[in-house]
Amino acid sequence: MSKQNITIAVDAMGGDSAPEQNVRGALLAAADKKLQIILVGDAEAIKPYLSDQPDNVLIRHAPDVIGMHEPPVQAVRKKTQSSLVVAANLVKVGQADALLSAGNTGASAAAGLLVLGRASTVDRPAIATLFPTRKGFSLLLDVGANADCKPENLLEFAKMGTVYMEQMLGITAPTIGLLNIGEESSKGNFLALRAYELLQQSSLKFYGNVEGRDLPEGRTDIIISDGFTGNIALKLMEGISSAIFEEIKGIVNRSLSARLGAALLFSRFKELRAKLNPESYGGSPLLGVKGVVIIAHGSSSPHALANAVKTAAQTVENQLVQKIEHSLGL
Amino acid sequence: MSKQNITIAVDAMGGDSAPEQNVRGALLAAADKKLQIILVGDAEAIKPYLSDQPDNVLIRHAPDVIGMHEPPVQAVRKKTQSSLVVAANLVKVGQADALLSAGNTGASAAAGLLVLGRASTVDRPAIATLFPTRKGFSLLLDVGANADCKPENLLEFAKMGTVYMEQMLGITAPTIGLLNIGEESSKGNFLALRAYELLQQSSLKFYGNVEGRDLPEGRTDIIISDGFTGNIALKLMEGISSAIFEEIKGIVNRSLSARLGAALLFSRFKELRAKLNPESYGGSPLLGVKGVVIIAHGSSSPHALANAVKTAAQTVENQLVQKIEHSLGL
Repeated sequence: MSKQNITIAVDAMGGDSAPEQNVRGALLAAADKKLQIILVGDAEAIKPYLSDQPDNVLIRHAPDVIGMHEPPVQAVRKKTQSSLVVAANLVKVGQADALLSAGNTGASAAAGLLVLGRASTVDRPAIATLFPTRKGFSLLLDVGANADCKPENLLEFAKMGTVYMEQMLGITAPTIGLLNIGEESSKGNFLALRAYELLQQSSLKFYGNVEGRDLPEGRTDIIISDGFTGNIALKLMEGISSAIFEEIKGIVNRSLSARLGAALLFSRFKELRAKLNPESYGGSPLLGVKGVVIIAHGSSSPHALANAVKTAAQTVENQLVQKIEHSLGL
Repeated sequence: MSKQNITIAVDAMGGDSAPEQNVRGALLAAADKKLQIILVGDAEAIKPYLSDQPDNVLIRHAPDVIGMHEPPVQAVRKKTQSSLVVAANLVKVGQADALLSAGNTGASAAAGLLVLGRASTVDRPAIATLFPTRKGFSLLLDVGANADCKPENLLEFAKMGTVYMEQMLGITAPTIGLLNIGEESSKGNFLALRAYELLQQSSLKFYGNVEGRDLPEGRTDIIISDGFTGNIALKLMEGISSAIFEEIKGIVNRSLSARLGAALLFSRFKELRAKLNPESYGGSPLLGVKGVVIIAHGSSSPHALANAVKTAAQTVENQLVQKIEHSLGL
């Protein structure tokens, strides 16, 4: 890409611990001087965490905020001066190359759709998330942009996921699995049965159905799902990992006779915990809109947010938006 | 219940390691002399594992078998001499009080539906599974009998689940959560949005929506879902637990400096693993049919199968079938 600097508009007010964590994340990311970061939000609330403001970190004041539980579409339509909508508009008018939000997921997706608009060749944009498996990573989409889907949408998700894995992870012809309730092509609900046929007929590298238990094994590079099931699956993976590690903490702490080894073991478990935590991986792209939109977890740490800024910059560099638009027009 | 003995028809040929594991499971369960167990299947294949046949274990020969991947409804209709269908017929004619199968789940549900029939007040029977949480257990249904559901079906699942938790676990007015993609009543796909309204209007103890991450926390006693999403969620829980414990095994084995404590720790992890393994808990009832049908995991150990026999006997003793039929007719 010819452009020297990449500018990321960060919604400073979205997230469980905004704006503090967001500003800290931006400062971490700003160590890369090829990036410019615009913190969008209430300037008064942001400043206290910016005592030492690097040259490549700017503030764009936006007086309003969209809460975590506001109805997405209405909120984006009404709150035109919210940090999220102002940040999306910076991307729309070309003042920023990408939007990063850790706020209300639905509203972030709605801002991408309503402010930036769908790519001309895409019917239904989708949120895609990399999640850790025993083999590495797989991409799950949709994880929440479309609660109700048609079979054609799932084929589109598979195409967009393929471009993402090729461009962002360098995996040629990534394998695609359809999240379903059995291996056989005869299994599934109406949506999955028809989507199976469409995927089978496509030129994509369709592996077939994958079941819930196949996800942690990394059976395929990409997992396709409607946004309802995908969202539940993603949150379940997060929830189970957390619950098991809480149990492990309890076991290690109670094991007096293992105390010597426990500290070492526990640090290794913590590494595993970090590996299994999807939020370590820097945000989920909203694929299929006219611009780069990265959605981070509401509970993202500054480290996770800095990773998400990097993901956003890479997505811009790789011209993913143009490549998806091109690929789906073929 | 006045009846002295409870008779369980066990499909001896269904399951990953049938008939050996099934016979071993039956023998374990037969230690309870108040039970009578009929092993249904190929007598020649069963006998080698029955060198010492207790008085309360009988064989009912059935020459045919339904495979794990056969299309359920067609297989049950065609293979009238299969172990599964013969076992279901024993329940139908009153020669057995309950059916236990670790074979093809879809076929087991189909046998319940087609041979025993729906309870007169029930529209769509559902498979219910207890799963371990940080607080104890929750009941998830449907986990696979109905890939496509109407909102009314989900209300019915909630009613049947309530009777199950009251009768089998002694929990008065169990709380009900609707598996969904957000806490707010405005979240969800069409099915979940409408089911939310029906549950809200019912006299059941409806907590509201629960997300994927709430399941391991045990937020509610019962989780309601369509059979597609429920099946994926259940298998995902199994898969993640397995994957994490494989990783833990690796960490403990590699931790030389922790070797002394490792053995002890590992035995505690194994206990946790067993606790988290749904198959330890003895089978999932098919609720809403005219008879007791318990579906066990294909990979069930003899211990798990013996637990499933116990669950079957308790279900008969508690007259669950009659109570569900009565409750849903109110």
